[in-house]
Amino acid sequence: MKNIRNSSIVGMQCIRCERDYAFDDFFEGCPACLAEGWPASLKVRYGRFSGQLSMDTVHNWLAYPGPCLGEGHTPLVDFPGLADEAGVAGLLVKNEAANPTGSHKDRMSALIVQRAREAGAPTLAVASSGNAGTSVAAYAAHAGLGCVVVTMPGMSPNWRRACEMHGARLVATPTPDERWMLVAQKARSGEWYPVTNYMIPAVGSNPIGIDGFRAIALELFLQTKNRSVTDIVVPTSRGDLLWGIAQGFVDLREAGLIRAIPRVHAVEPFARIKRALEEGDYRNIYDGKSAMVSLGGSTVTFQAVDGIRKTGGSAIPVDEQDVLRDQEVLAQNGLYTELSSAAALTAARSIGLTGDAKSRTIVCIATSHGYKEFQQYREPIELYLQNGGKTEI
Amino acid sequence: MKNIRNSSIVGMQCIRCERDYAFDDFFEGCPACLAEGWPASLKVRYGRFSGQLSMDTVHNWLAYPGPCLGEGHTPLVDFPGLADEAGVAGLLVKNEAANPTGSHKDRMSALIVQRAREAGAPTLAVASSGNAGTSVAAYAAHAGLGCVVVTMPGMSPNWRRACEMHGARLVATPTPDERWMLVAQKARSGEWYPVTNYMIPAVGSNPIGIDGFRAIALELFLQTKNRSVTDIVVPTSRGDLLWGIAQGFVDLREAGLIRAIPRVHAVEPFARIKRALEEGDYRNIYDGKSAMVSLGGSTVTFQAVDGIRKTGGSAIPVDEQDVLRDQEVLAQNGLYTELSSAAALTAARSIGLTGDAKSRTIVCIATSHGYKEFQQYREPIELYLQNGGKTEI
Repeated sequence: MKNIRNSSIVGMQCIRCERDYAFDDFFEGCPACLAEGWPASLKVRYGRFSGQLSMDTVHNWLAYPGPCLGEGHTPLVDFPGLADEAGVAGLLVKNEAANPTGSHKDRMSALIVQRAREAGAPTLAVASSGNAGTSVAAYAAHAGLGCVVVTMPGMSPNWRRACEMHGARLVATPTPDERWMLVAQKARSGEWYPVTNYMIPAVGSNPIGIDGFRAIALELFLQTKNRSVTDIVVPTSRGDLLWGIAQGFVDLREAGLIRAIPRVHAVEPFARIKRALEEGDYRNIYDGKSAMVSLGGSTVTFQAVDGIRKTGGSAIPVDEQDVLRDQEVLAQNGLYTELSSAAALTAARSIGLTGDAKSRTIVCIATSHGYKEFQQYREPIELYLQNGGKTEI
Repeated sequence: MKNIRNSSIVGMQCIRCERDYAFDDFFEGCPACLAEGWPASLKVRYGRFSGQLSMDTVHNWLAYPGPCLGEGHTPLVDFPGLADEAGVAGLLVKNEAANPTGSHKDRMSALIVQRAREAGAPTLAVASSGNAGTSVAAYAAHAGLGCVVVTMPGMSPNWRRACEMHGARLVATPTPDERWMLVAQKARSGEWYPVTNYMIPAVGSNPIGIDGFRAIALELFLQTKNRSVTDIVVPTSRGDLLWGIAQGFVDLREAGLIRAIPRVHAVEPFARIKRALEEGDYRNIYDGKSAMVSLGGSTVTFQAVDGIRKTGGSAIPVDEQDVLRDQEVLAQNGLYTELSSAAALTAARSIGLTGDAKSRTIVCIATSHGYKEFQQYREPIELYLQNGGKTEI
């Protein structure tokens, strides 16, 4: 595995106050903004990108040139039937489940392990009961690093077994807040290299990991050359993925490869970012329950607000019953996604209700596949008995 | 979805007697060989391929030009540490779990649904309790076709739920043989379009589906231009995947793109193909139990024997305890595969014991990820209680 940092990097920059910093780890965001009471994350800052871009050179735009385990270059699938149903010009799904651990998180993990090795950090820590946990566990194993997954006692069996197989240490705390407190303590002591947020108000995940999500925008640019994508719908909790995609489009514009940036929308299980946008303050706590386990959390981040604002996007809360239906709709169109991913289709439908829907071509980000969560069977399997079978086949 | 058959197709050909037939469905293999008592499958026969090949044109070598749901173009990951451990020059893993339903079967399903639509077949039938079932269910849903998954009552919950979500009809029979009898009856009546084998002795899956596995060889050729791959290890039941990969390399040689074909080996849970090769008869029944559920079955096919023979490969039975260990080894190197996939690493190790191991560069085919089967947890999660916690973190 290479651990060679991209030579185009010129430092780090706060995404809120735009102060420049030397390249380094900033687990708690911009020190100046934190001191002012408005915590915000940093980004990796690059010099000018070459205007050349192909699927084989996307990684040259990232903080570390990987690839590690084959992440990225995920398929974009056209669903003209769903577009008609939603009343929009186009509806495509970027299927991040094709990544090595079955979720977009691998794009983050690939960079994090390279950074952690460069920084000499022996143990990664991730506060997660889902995709981030299994992804970091896999990449840490691949890179020969230790990994602690700080979870809750009720972790889903499928995710849990993956972490165990990757050799991660699993530690449960009774509440989500205690997960963050534990990681904070160990990160500050230098014992663990933290991948995910542990701050309240939240700043989001490790910015060097978030840098990897920019690749989705670059791939979409290459995969949609013949169509004009107007909207990207991103399942969102604290906005790591959303901000990365938005920034990728900003980079493409700065490189002169695109003129207009698509609107990047957050789909969320209850009004949280939406309220933060309305209230002009992203530091509040918004509680809500949801079966969309990958989109949980009561915090909002500056990065979520920033990614939406700078692309002209919006925050779209969706109803859980609608999302459950759309998970079936997607599966009945061939894609069995995690419930949290299906929320993107539900949000795309709401975009389809706007006045200019017919001019919209929407990309939904499917963050993960359906094999990780487990719900109910519908009904018993029909039993076919050859002699005197009860079932007429 | 396109349903345009490849214009390079000149017909079908028996892979055993080489008799030519017009392009059509041959669910029961070559009629002449069947009448002679040596059932064997057919292959799609092409005219000359263009010597041009790139990742973007692989589908032009297939029976139908898809892609449908983003299948194919799976990553090839280098594991130098595992190569050292196995005593070989190189060990790489072709990760088929990156396909839309998480297994190589999608390459088959993508062609099958296009053929079924062309043929006007309304309902696909697949005898499977695993990857084939969920893959065909997904692609049938995508193509607007019906799908019956003929399974057994103890089907794994993760696979079962996927089939249900895709809207497939699930029918269970008490024994595997009865699955085939039911499919046979419905296929012969024209009611169901069969994807998988239902013959005893077996002939393997629908040849138009198997055609899709050839793409793996083409991709490997493109992905390994700078290294000389000597051996491919393929987890094998009835040899669909193995034969397709072997044929792909034959096609590359006929197109003048390669000179030497790597040895294509079958890894199997108990000596079955190995004994058929020794006995010179692939029609016997070999019973054996295995936790490698995707490699089960008591039958051997001509295609399995043919794929091995024409590439100079071998059949490598592996010990279940070794495979369980290698599933952990792979996960601890970053790849959480199905148990049946880990068998390829176990077989690669046995190749590493041969005299010329140092000259071998082996590609293991990882057929599916680990999220579909479910086994045991290792131990309870450590519980961290902040006040008076029992666990020292």
